[in-house]
Amino acid sequence: TQWLSHVSSVWPLPQIVIPSPERYQLKPQSFSFGYRRNLDTKHSCSVLDAAFKRYFSILFPGYTYANLITFSIGYPNQDSSERYKLSVFAGQASLNAETVWGSLRGLETFSQLVYQDDFGSYYVNKTEIEDYPQFNYRGILLDTSRHYLPVQAILKTLDAMAYSKFNVFHWHLVDDPSFPYQSQKFPDLSNKGAFHPVTHIYTQSDVRRVISYARMRGIRVLPEFDSPGHTKSWGKGQSELLTPCYRGDTPSGTFGPVNPTLPSTYQFMASLLKEVASVFPDPYIHLGGDEVDFSCWRSNPYIRAFMHKMGFGLDFSKLEAFYIEKIVNITSVLRKTSIVWQDVFDYHERRKFLSVVEVWKQGCYLCEVRRVVKAGLRVILASPWYLDQPGPTHNWARYYNVWPLAFKGTEKQKSLVIGGEVCLWGEYVDATNLSPRLWPRASAAAERLWSNERQTSCVERAFPRLQEFRCKLLRRGIQAEPLYVGHCKHEYQSG
Amino acid sequence: TQWLSHVSSVWPLPQIVIPSPERYQLKPQSFSFGYRRNLDTKHSCSVLDAAFKRYFSILFPGYTYANLITFSIGYPNQDSSERYKLSVFAGQASLNAETVWGSLRGLETFSQLVYQDDFGSYYVNKTEIEDYPQFNYRGILLDTSRHYLPVQAILKTLDAMAYSKFNVFHWHLVDDPSFPYQSQKFPDLSNKGAFHPVTHIYTQSDVRRVISYARMRGIRVLPEFDSPGHTKSWGKGQSELLTPCYRGDTPSGTFGPVNPTLPSTYQFMASLLKEVASVFPDPYIHLGGDEVDFSCWRSNPYIRAFMHKMGFGLDFSKLEAFYIEKIVNITSVLRKTSIVWQDVFDYHERRKFLSVVEVWKQGCYLCEVRRVVKAGLRVILASPWYLDQPGPTHNWARYYNVWPLAFKGTEKQKSLVIGGEVCLWGEYVDATNLSPRLWPRASAAAERLWSNERQTSCVERAFPRLQEFRCKLLRRGIQAEPLYVGHCKHEYQSG
Repeated sequence: TQWLSHVSSVWPLPQIVIPSPERYQLKPQSFSFGYRRNLDTKHSCSVLDAAFKRYFSILFPGYTYANLITFSIGYPNQDSSERYKLSVFAGQASLNAETVWGSLRGLETFSQLVYQDDFGSYYVNKTEIEDYPQFNYRGILLDTSRHYLPVQAILKTLDAMAYSKFNVFHWHLVDDPSFPYQSQKFPDLSNKGAFHPVTHIYTQSDVRRVISYARMRGIRVLPEFDSPGHTKSWGKGQSELLTPCYRGDTPSGTFGPVNPTLPSTYQFMASLLKEVASVFPDPYIHLGGDEVDFSCWRSNPYIRAFMHKMGFGLDFSKLEAFYIEKIVNITSVLRKTSIVWQDVFDYHERRKFLSVVEVWKQGCYLCEVRRVVKAGLRVILASPWYLDQPGPTHNWARYYNVWPLAFKGTEKQKSLVIGGEVCLWGEYVDATNLSPRLWPRASAAAERLWSNERQTSCVERAFPRLQEFRCKLLRRGIQAEPLYVGHCKHEYQSG
Repeated sequence: TQWLSHVSSVWPLPQIVIPSPERYQLKPQSFSFGYRRNLDTKHSCSVLDAAFKRYFSILFPGYTYANLITFSIGYPNQDSSERYKLSVFAGQASLNAETVWGSLRGLETFSQLVYQDDFGSYYVNKTEIEDYPQFNYRGILLDTSRHYLPVQAILKTLDAMAYSKFNVFHWHLVDDPSFPYQSQKFPDLSNKGAFHPVTHIYTQSDVRRVISYARMRGIRVLPEFDSPGHTKSWGKGQSELLTPCYRGDTPSGTFGPVNPTLPSTYQFMASLLKEVASVFPDPYIHLGGDEVDFSCWRSNPYIRAFMHKMGFGLDFSKLEAFYIEKIVNITSVLRKTSIVWQDVFDYHERRKFLSVVEVWKQGCYLCEVRRVVKAGLRVILASPWYLDQPGPTHNWARYYNVWPLAFKGTEKQKSLVIGGEVCLWGEYVDATNLSPRLWPRASAAAERLWSNERQTSCVERAFPRLQEFRCKLLRRGIQAEPLYVGHCKHEYQSG
C-alpha cells in the first residue's frame, strides 16, 4: 500500500481521486509537457510554459526543461475557475481545465503524485482526479510594516503558497511603524516613513516583480492601505494628514488617526488610491479600517467642532463611518471593490456601501460571519488563522478543525462566505522566522479552504499526509518546521 | 552618544569597559592582526591564525585575509582561562590573554567594537576592556535523535555560539527515536537504529569535523550517551541490551530500559564508552540517567528475581543506582569525569560516586541546586533555559532574569555551580527552525553566564544592546528572530 500513500498524500486533498496500483515510470530525458491549443488561442501561453519549466525541475531536481514561446493572458481574479481534471493513464497524463489557473493547480497536483523509488527512478500511478476549490478566496497576509521583508522572502512565500494552492497574497504594505511602499506621486511617504529610505522600501519595480511572480503562480496580489488608524508612519511624509492630539488647549506634539475633517485629506487619499489602483491590477483593494482609537480625535477642538457641525454628537464611530464612506466611494470611482476589516461593519449603521468584510476578531467568529452574510455582504474569515504568535506546531489541528460554514443560514447566505485567510502579522516575524512560522501550519488552513469538508474532517487521517507534504516542502527548499519527532528523506539543508 | 552605543553594545557585557569618544578609522587594505610569541611558543598558533582569518571577514565583509602557518595546541577544557585584556589606543589594538581561548573571546569582543559609518568607513573607538566569564561552563544542548540535524546546521550553531561566548556544545547524540552516531565497534547501532543508515547518521569523520570546528572557536564538545532510559533506538542494533517487557507471564514484544541484570550489558557499555572516550577528547562524558520508567523492569520476572537476590526489595531506584554506579565506574576507569541529570542525584542515596549534576526540572530549581552543592557536588543549571518550546521572543527577559547563585550557601558551595546550559530538545526542532528558536533567546542566557550579575540586572538597559547584537548576528548570517517591531541595517537575506 505504499503506492496508495503516494497518491493520497496530495495536499490539499483533491475533491475526487480514483487511485490505482498500476504505475508508470517517468524518464526525465524523455518526459515532456504539452497542451492542446484552444480554438481561440493561437499562441502558446507564457504562464503555462513557465509553469512547465518550474514543475519540471520540481519533478526532476537537477534536470532542466526549456521550450518557451511567449504570449500574454490576464490576471487571476475572484471569479477565475480553478477546476481541473487530471488523468494519468498508459504512460500519459492529461490535464483539462477551463483556465490557465486551473491548469496550474492541476500541475501542482501532478507534481505531488510523482515519487522516486529507493533506486532513484521516478514513478507515477494510474490516477483519475477531478478537483476544484471549496472557496475561491484562499489568502495569506504578510505584514511589511512592522518588519521589512526583503523581496526575496516574499517571492519564496509565493512559491510555498502555490504548493498549498493558496491564491491571494494580501499585502499589508504599510502601518504605524513604517511605510515601505515607494509611491510615485508621494515619494516622501517612504523617504520619511520607511525604516530606511533606500534599503527598506519596495520600489515600483519591486512591486511589479511581486505581482508578476504571483501571477505566474495563479496568485492575486491584494494591496492593503489601512486607514484612518494604523497610519503613524504616513504622517512623517505627508504633513496635515494625521490629527494633532491635544493636551488641554494645546497640541501635545503627538498625532492620532487620519484627520477626517479636512478636504486635503480626501484629495490626498484619492490621489494615492488612484496610483494604487493603477499599480495593482487586482479588482479589489483592502482599505483596512480596524482599531481606530478615538481619544486623539476627542482631544482635538477642531474635530469636536466638526462633529458638532455634522450633528454626530459624541459618537466618534459616526465620524469614522463618514471617513470610510468617502474612501469607499473614492475606491468605487476607481472601479475597485473594497474590502474592510470587521470593525467597519460592527460600528457603522449604514452597511450597504460595504462589499466584503474580513472577520478577524477572536471569540465567536461564526456569529460575526452570520451577521455579515445576513446583511447581504460577502465575508473572508481570518479569526481562526492568526499564525503570527508562535505556537507548538503539533497543534496544527487547531487550524485544520475550522468549519467556516457551520452557522445557521441559507445556502445563499453561505455562498457569501468567499473564503479565508491566514494572517502573519509582523510584530514578531521577519525574514528570519517567516517560513517556519507559516509552514506547515498554513497548509492546514489551505486544505480546509480547498478540499471537501466531509473528506477532510479526520485529523488522524490528515496527519501522515501533512507529514509527507511537509517533506515535499523541504525538498523544494521551503523551511517548513517539523510537526513532531521524525525525519524526511531529504532534510532541509541550511545555507 | 552614538559612539557609546557602539561600545556598550558588546554582548555579553565585558566585566570592565572604559570607553572613549576618540575613534580610529580602520582600513581593510592596511589592517592586520599579529601576536607576540610567548617564550615557549616558537611557532604560530593555528587556532589564532584561523580566527584572524574568520574575524577579518566578519569585520570587513567582502575582503579576505590570509597569513597562515600551522602548529598544534590542545583542546579547551573546564579549567581553561578565558580571561583577556583588550586595549584599543592610538590606532592599535592589543589583546592580552593567558590562553588562546581567552584570545578568541577577546577577538570576538574586538569584532563587536568595530562599526561602519553611513559612508561605509570602518571605525573603532579608544577602549579599555578587562574581561572574564562569571561561569566556566556555558553550554548549549542540541538533540540529534528526535530529529536528525545535518552537520552544516551544527556548524552554523557553533559559529553563533562563539558570537555569544558559549563554550560547551552538549551533544545529545542518541535517544529513543534514533541512533545517528556511527560507532566503529557497533555499526549496527546506526545501521538499524538511525532514521536512515546512510543519510541520517554522523560518521566518524562528521564527528571529527564537529569537534575540530568547535575547538577552533574555543568550544568543547560534550557527548551524551543517555542510559538506562531513553534507549529504545539502541535496542534495534544491539539485541539483549534492552529489558523485554512482560504482559503477565509472557514477553509482550516491547522493550524497556537497558537490562541492568546481565553481564553482557556492562561489557557492551564498557566497549561503547571506551570508543566514545577516545573519539571525544573532552575529559567529561554526559551519562544521562534521566526519566527511567520502572514499569517494564517491574513486569519482567528475571528482573524481579535479580532484585530479590540483591536485596533491593521493591525499590527499583536501587536497581537504577546499581546500574548507574557501574557505568560511572566504567567512565572513571577511562579517566573521564561523568555528568548526570538530576534524577540520578534525586533517587540515589549514595551520592559520593557522582561528580557533576545537571539540574533540569522546572519548579524550585535553586532548591535543587542548593541540595546538590550541599552534598559537595558540582552543578550545571539548565532548568530556566529550556528553549525548545516556542515562546514569544519578546519574553527573552525570562531567560535573562535568572540568578543561578541566588540561594543560601557558602562561597565554597556557590563555587560548585560551574555554569549553565540552554537546552534545545528536538521534539519540535530540526534544521528548519533551529536558528530562530535558539537566537537571540540563548544570547540572553549567554550574558547571564558570562557577565557580571550586578552590571546586567536591568532588562531595560539590556534591550537595546540585545537588539543591536541581534542585528550583528543577522549581518553574520545567523537567522536570529526579531525581539519586536523594528529593523536592522542589514536584514537577513534568505537563500
